[in-house]
Amino acid sequence: MECVVRPCRAEDCVEVVRMIKELAEFEKLPDQVQINDQVLREDGFANDPFYRCLVAEVPPEHRSRDGHTVVGYGLYFFTYSTWKGRNIYMEDLYVMPEFRGKGIGKKLMSKIAEIGVENRCTQMKFVVLDWNQAAIDFYQGQGAVDLTAAEGWHFFHFEGDALEQLAQAS
Amino acid sequence: MECVVRPCRAEDCVEVVRMIKELAEFEKLPDQVQINDQVLREDGFANDPFYRCLVAEVPPEHRSRDGHTVVGYGLYFFTYSTWKGRNIYMEDLYVMPEFRGKGIGKKLMSKIAEIGVENRCTQMKFVVLDWNQAAIDFYQGQGAVDLTAAEGWHFFHFEGDALEQLAQAS
Repeated sequence: MECVVRPCRAEDCVEVVRMIKELAEFEKLPDQVQINDQVLREDGFANDPFYRCLVAEVPPEHRSRDGHTVVGYGLYFFTYSTWKGRNIYMEDLYVMPEFRGKGIGKKLMSKIAEIGVENRCTQMKFVVLDWNQAAIDFYQGQGAVDLTAAEGWHFFHFEGDALEQLAQAS
Repeated sequence: MECVVRPCRAEDCVEVVRMIKELAEFEKLPDQVQINDQVLREDGFANDPFYRCLVAEVPPEHRSRDGHTVVGYGLYFFTYSTWKGRNIYMEDLYVMPEFRGKGIGKKLMSKIAEIGVENRCTQMKFVVLDWNQAAIDFYQGQGAVDLTAAEGWHFFHFEGDALEQLAQAS
């Protein structure tokens, strides 16, 4: 199927937020989504964008059952490793269920990797839920390594009151 | 002990690289360090810096046994959550062993949290090795949550040939 991967534009944010919610549903954590398209637009399309995003678009004749032509996205940003220098971080990779198995996810992911390599990044990082075996198989099939399993890295965060109190202690 | 937390300057990169290596030794992964102070300077002090960094400095009369006055650092950058918006990510937090137990780590971490809150970040994220119980106790004592344990997130990466092949498939 013809499918174009292109940079997300500000007016695509409505579609991206729709898919962010679909992905969170799939990940069984839908209550975590506190974002809306206005915030996404502000944070991604101002002077110092906090993220970058690619979307996968199909022609109108192949639109989804409910009428969408933007059927996948990959959201990423640059990070840094004090061991290995520049990294690219893939925050989300999503393709709508009815468009899976057509290479669209691979196309989005490869484009993010290409952008990373062009910017001299030595690693592309991301997180996956441990029960999402289909995703783990997909990534490991392309050569990804599970650093939590291999080296024992655990992912932590401060949030809400804990973050506020920490900030106030400064 | 008097200790100032201040932004890292380009000329501090030599000291920061020294401490990056000390931290990697402690983490039992010293072979992973491929960075040097020239790369660190280029990536942090050009137009679009890939990271930001704070250092902890003591006055000359309190310098370390081997003569260092820069005795700790916290390296961070901004990232993004498609669920919760802006995040601040603490890549490294390190205090030289002979300066621990004096609140320097807390001071560095609190300053990073403050910078995050000022920039409307809703989370401060970081990773910890699962055997580093002293660090886990320190972070959890301040209210941090282990998202790998709580929700099952595993940390993955593509690197080297796997990253190159992925990029070339684009």
